[in-house]
Amino acid sequence: MSEQAPLKLDEAELRGLLDGRWANVRERARDVIRGEEFAPVYGLSVEEHRARTLKQLMALNGTGMPAYGFPGSVGGADDVGASVVAFEMLVADMSLMVKMGVQFGLFGGAVKALGTDEHHQRYLPDIMSVELPGCFAMTETGHGSDVQSLGTTATYDPDTEEFVVRTPNEHARKDYIGNAARDGRMAVVFAQLRTPDGDGGLVEHGVHALMVPIRDGEGRPMPGVTVEDCGHKAGLNGVDNGRLWFDDVRVPRTDLLNRYGDVAADGTYSSPIENPNRRFFTMLGTLIRGRISVAGGAGSATKAALAIAVRYADTRRQFTRPATDSQPEQEVRILDYLAHQRKLLPALARTYGLHFAQEELVTRLHELSRSEERDEHAQRELESRAAGLKAVATWHATETIQTCREACGGAGYLSENRIPQLKADSDIFTTFEGDNTVLLQQLTKGLLTNFKDSFGDLDQLGLAKFMAGKVFETVIERTAAIPLIDRLIDASPGRGEEASLYNRGWQLELLEDREKHIIEGLAGRLRRSRKDGSDAFDVFNQAQDHVLAAGRAHMDRVVLEAFVAGIDRCGDKPTAKLLNRLCDLYVLSVIEEDRAWFLEHERLSTARAKAVTQAVNDLCQGLRPYAVQLVEAFGLRDEWLAAPIALGAEQQRQGE
Amino acid sequence: MSEQAPLKLDEAELRGLLDGRWANVRERARDVIRGEEFAPVYGLSVEEHRARTLKQLMALNGTGMPAYGFPGSVGGADDVGASVVAFEMLVADMSLMVKMGVQFGLFGGAVKALGTDEHHQRYLPDIMSVELPGCFAMTETGHGSDVQSLGTTATYDPDTEEFVVRTPNEHARKDYIGNAARDGRMAVVFAQLRTPDGDGGLVEHGVHALMVPIRDGEGRPMPGVTVEDCGHKAGLNGVDNGRLWFDDVRVPRTDLLNRYGDVAADGTYSSPIENPNRRFFTMLGTLIRGRISVAGGAGSATKAALAIAVRYADTRRQFTRPATDSQPEQEVRILDYLAHQRKLLPALARTYGLHFAQEELVTRLHELSRSEERDEHAQRELESRAAGLKAVATWHATETIQTCREACGGAGYLSENRIPQLKADSDIFTTFEGDNTVLLQQLTKGLLTNFKDSFGDLDQLGLAKFMAGKVFETVIERTAAIPLIDRLIDASPGRGEEASLYNRGWQLELLEDREKHIIEGLAGRLRRSRKDGSDAFDVFNQAQDHVLAAGRAHMDRVVLEAFVAGIDRCGDKPTAKLLNRLCDLYVLSVIEEDRAWFLEHERLSTARAKAVTQAVNDLCQGLRPYAVQLVEAFGLRDEWLAAPIALGAEQQRQGE
Repeated sequence: MSEQAPLKLDEAELRGLLDGRWANVRERARDVIRGEEFAPVYGLSVEEHRARTLKQLMALNGTGMPAYGFPGSVGGADDVGASVVAFEMLVADMSLMVKMGVQFGLFGGAVKALGTDEHHQRYLPDIMSVELPGCFAMTETGHGSDVQSLGTTATYDPDTEEFVVRTPNEHARKDYIGNAARDGRMAVVFAQLRTPDGDGGLVEHGVHALMVPIRDGEGRPMPGVTVEDCGHKAGLNGVDNGRLWFDDVRVPRTDLLNRYGDVAADGTYSSPIENPNRRFFTMLGTLIRGRISVAGGAGSATKAALAIAVRYADTRRQFTRPATDSQPEQEVRILDYLAHQRKLLPALARTYGLHFAQEELVTRLHELSRSEERDEHAQRELESRAAGLKAVATWHATETIQTCREACGGAGYLSENRIPQLKADSDIFTTFEGDNTVLLQQLTKGLLTNFKDSFGDLDQLGLAKFMAGKVFETVIERTAAIPLIDRLIDASPGRGEEASLYNRGWQLELLEDREKHIIEGLAGRLRRSRKDGSDAFDVFNQAQDHVLAAGRAHMDRVVLEAFVAGIDRCGDKPTAKLLNRLCDLYVLSVIEEDRAWFLEHERLSTARAKAVTQAVNDLCQGLRPYAVQLVEAFGLRDEWLAAPIALGAEQQRQGE
Repeated sequence: MSEQAPLKLDEAELRGLLDGRWANVRERARDVIRGEEFAPVYGLSVEEHRARTLKQLMALNGTGMPAYGFPGSVGGADDVGASVVAFEMLVADMSLMVKMGVQFGLFGGAVKALGTDEHHQRYLPDIMSVELPGCFAMTETGHGSDVQSLGTTATYDPDTEEFVVRTPNEHARKDYIGNAARDGRMAVVFAQLRTPDGDGGLVEHGVHALMVPIRDGEGRPMPGVTVEDCGHKAGLNGVDNGRLWFDDVRVPRTDLLNRYGDVAADGTYSSPIENPNRRFFTMLGTLIRGRISVAGGAGSATKAALAIAVRYADTRRQFTRPATDSQPEQEVRILDYLAHQRKLLPALARTYGLHFAQEELVTRLHELSRSEERDEHAQRELESRAAGLKAVATWHATETIQTCREACGGAGYLSENRIPQLKADSDIFTTFEGDNTVLLQQLTKGLLTNFKDSFGDLDQLGLAKFMAGKVFETVIERTAAIPLIDRLIDASPGRGEEASLYNRGWQLELLEDREKHIIEGLAGRLRRSRKDGSDAFDVFNQAQDHVLAAGRAHMDRVVLEAFVAGIDRCGDKPTAKLLNRLCDLYVLSVIEEDRAWFLEHERLSTARAKAVTQAVNDLCQGLRPYAVQLVEAFGLRDEWLAAPIALGAEQQRQGE
């Protein structure tokens, strides 16, 4: 590889390819997120940072960014994809990114998705302008991942036509709620809805959302509302997370967000979705945008850290290379070391793959949001993929930013070089909008049921029953550029040893085969053990590592397909050639990482497994000369990176 | 495993075993590090934190802790081991840990190790009492890992009998120096020593250390000294790191720390070690205590994070287990999930192994420091092992604390729960006192040369030449409890399939065999390529992943042997039995992680590799009931952990 003639990249083409369908949104962000007002900061006190972040949020007014995700009926741009892309572009300060996500995505998004036109007209204009800052009050201290078990109640009182919102115990206090500690005036509160049964008892209708005022115009908590500050956090200290308790707070009947469930004045409950489980998961499904945004935000943080670490490694020198016949003794740029390439370049390749996968996912979300008819299967597939991509993208961010910190040595520990803040801010991304371990399991349940049933619907027992009744067959659903991928696989020489490791068809087939095998093995395991009467919980629990492996294998394939489809859109040959090498590095490092599996299942011989390791080394060395261009293409402004070590300080010092 | 009868642990025995030889030092720390003065903090401004940390450092006066590492001649306790153990016990605030390390370990330690009795008498009493706070000014912006290339110069002027200390360019500014930004009065400055050659030129003698005053009694920089603050960092903000420049600063001749190199009044240089390279590495070798201390400190941070995460996971519940015939529906403790056990328990097992390896290493350091004769081989082995243990212990800390953060969900992101600070503070441990990637390579060079030559001596070219001349044979040197381990290996049934995965002899042999094979393969690779005339740098660089694998494999074995030896010291049978299971979990997860290697090299069949994964799962489930006791045994005071989620907040909430 390293012997080949150098490629001349078309940088504009590459940038355009990465900018993708919402290039205008990215350009807009590059235009407006600049200057002192939006510059990265560190070392502020919590209160200073919160004040700054709120000011930044207000300053987004007039940029058009707040309107992207809202309906045209209230002056929005009705462009869901744009709203997700805008979120990820706010990487200059991730507190602003998350604060924006809370206000427009979670709070505004819930009103939009769960409310009806009356709510839209009443609330959305003030939400867009931030005149009404608000909260998305779902998570409780006792229940984060298990939303269906929330403890807050909203009980209808027909006498006053009000709901009475109550925090029955400490499990049910709302926790980690963004905008709660300082700025929020209202909250979308998720609570167990109950109506009188006419005999002095109550009927439970499951989790619904209501608009509840939490502060008055002077910022004082409303009567019956108790607020506590979550205080200092590892990062994102510009976001004011807090806790909320409701002591019989009364809200008008019309403040139930009633798209999926309504209560008439007399207390009669009605819903367009009869099955309460299905209703619950349908409601949750409308909120999927937040999860997709987090995957994108994690991607931006990863790109920023890589841009800093790669630029630094390209200039920083350490240890001397002895003189040879052809060149004098000189200190070596650290990116010329294989160990350093190994740290950064496979991570860079995966970041590209995840970028293309994210673009596909956003496009899918956007298109589903525009379609008139509801396609249940497509919706469940989107939810599964969103769960999976959020998990792998945020874990990738956490690992990669950590690696970048270490790759920058002591300089990477100084706050002025940005990486500490990127690390601290993005760390929680593996947890919020769904714990990654839980999400990967959701994905696998979707794969096991082939999205035929509302997978969220199934607890372990339900899944076991479902599995027991079926002859299982994995359906590999292509996610991108279908004819191309079929063509590549058809052209592959098959499982044998003959195919080159760089044969794309062979690679695609190998990942597809692994996914299929893991899922089918898992299905068999769940089915078999069901038959011998084991306890469903124990069976599922003992297979949990298998369940997680299935989700990961699926996402590896999804990312590869998206990468292939992305390269197919590239209009410049040398650039596409380079991206193909980068894609090789992605897939061969995926294979290398899991080569024990391929060996155990006789998909790779020992000789071939060793060859994969060598190929990863070769690719690292071959791609090294392009590393800086590859991070430039992300199009992150220098002032967003802000790190002196990435902006010439190192060259300047060496040039003296 | 999970079917076996429960074991009754002897908690005092276990605590005593872990407390080890320096139990009194640990108990002393438990006695004195308490109350508001030493409580963990977060959210302080940099200046507040620095002031607090200095105050804490002063408060150690009277505890006896400062004196541990200093000679009896100046009132010290002459107990090097105690000084290392005391360092690791200061986990309540790692800024204090590091500040103490800078003052007593690095600054004071350099005066002790590189100075002679005159310096000891002149400086050590004030260093112990912190009346003379000081710096260890080695690292420069241009050279961190490559100390031999430092740029600062100290040129002898016979006319005034002074050294002139100079920072010739920006590469040579001292960087990241603890105690420099605020508190330091003097610095041990490492500089290239030069004396006049009598013909108007200079003779270079390599890196030496001098005492240089940097601030006067009022805290103002001394004439010719420029100080800059490194500013806000990811963590350890209680430590005042800074940069130093010297503009022809003059210091008396007698302030050269002259144990390994002296300059007479007339400018004549003399040294007990003739070879300049050997002299350099001998001097560096005396400073090995800092590196060993860091490995211990990383261990404490890991233990604290695990103690918090395990206690929380033992009480926190999420998702409901359906009712069975024998028990009603209930919410599941998250530590009952296999995926959660997999996150925490193998990490816990490795933490135990590293603890025992650290105890061995400290003991070795302590004994060598007391021996009259210098044993070159033993010293080099100690340095190699210190490099390797520092690398694996600090990487383990970084990974484990990250995992603990995620395992605690949103609660793990709140500063009140301690994990964010542990993460941020310990993050730099992979970099300071030697970059881990560089250190692992040093270790492997030591293994390749079997410590016969001063391994630091050899650059790539030197190593290639060394390898070329030898028929290489790995010598596996046992590091602990030699007869026991030989006995276990002798009793092993050998490489075949017959041995139980739990057979200790088989496990020991497997890790030993892997290490030997990797090192011999590497030696062959370096030797072969030398023969065909390749460039030594390229050859070594292309084998860098192989070099790192060799170091890791060695350390895996060293840790296993220490674990086995530790269990052998346990006086209570059920406790030893449990530790044996924990040791199984350690070694089987090491094998699982690298099972691709064992498959590729036909050390494991595919069936056996799969059985390893199953055994890790079984061990996790079997050890789960003892997890809380196993973290209790670390003996970290509740007030050091300080995290509400680990101290009853979760139980209390559930009990309401």
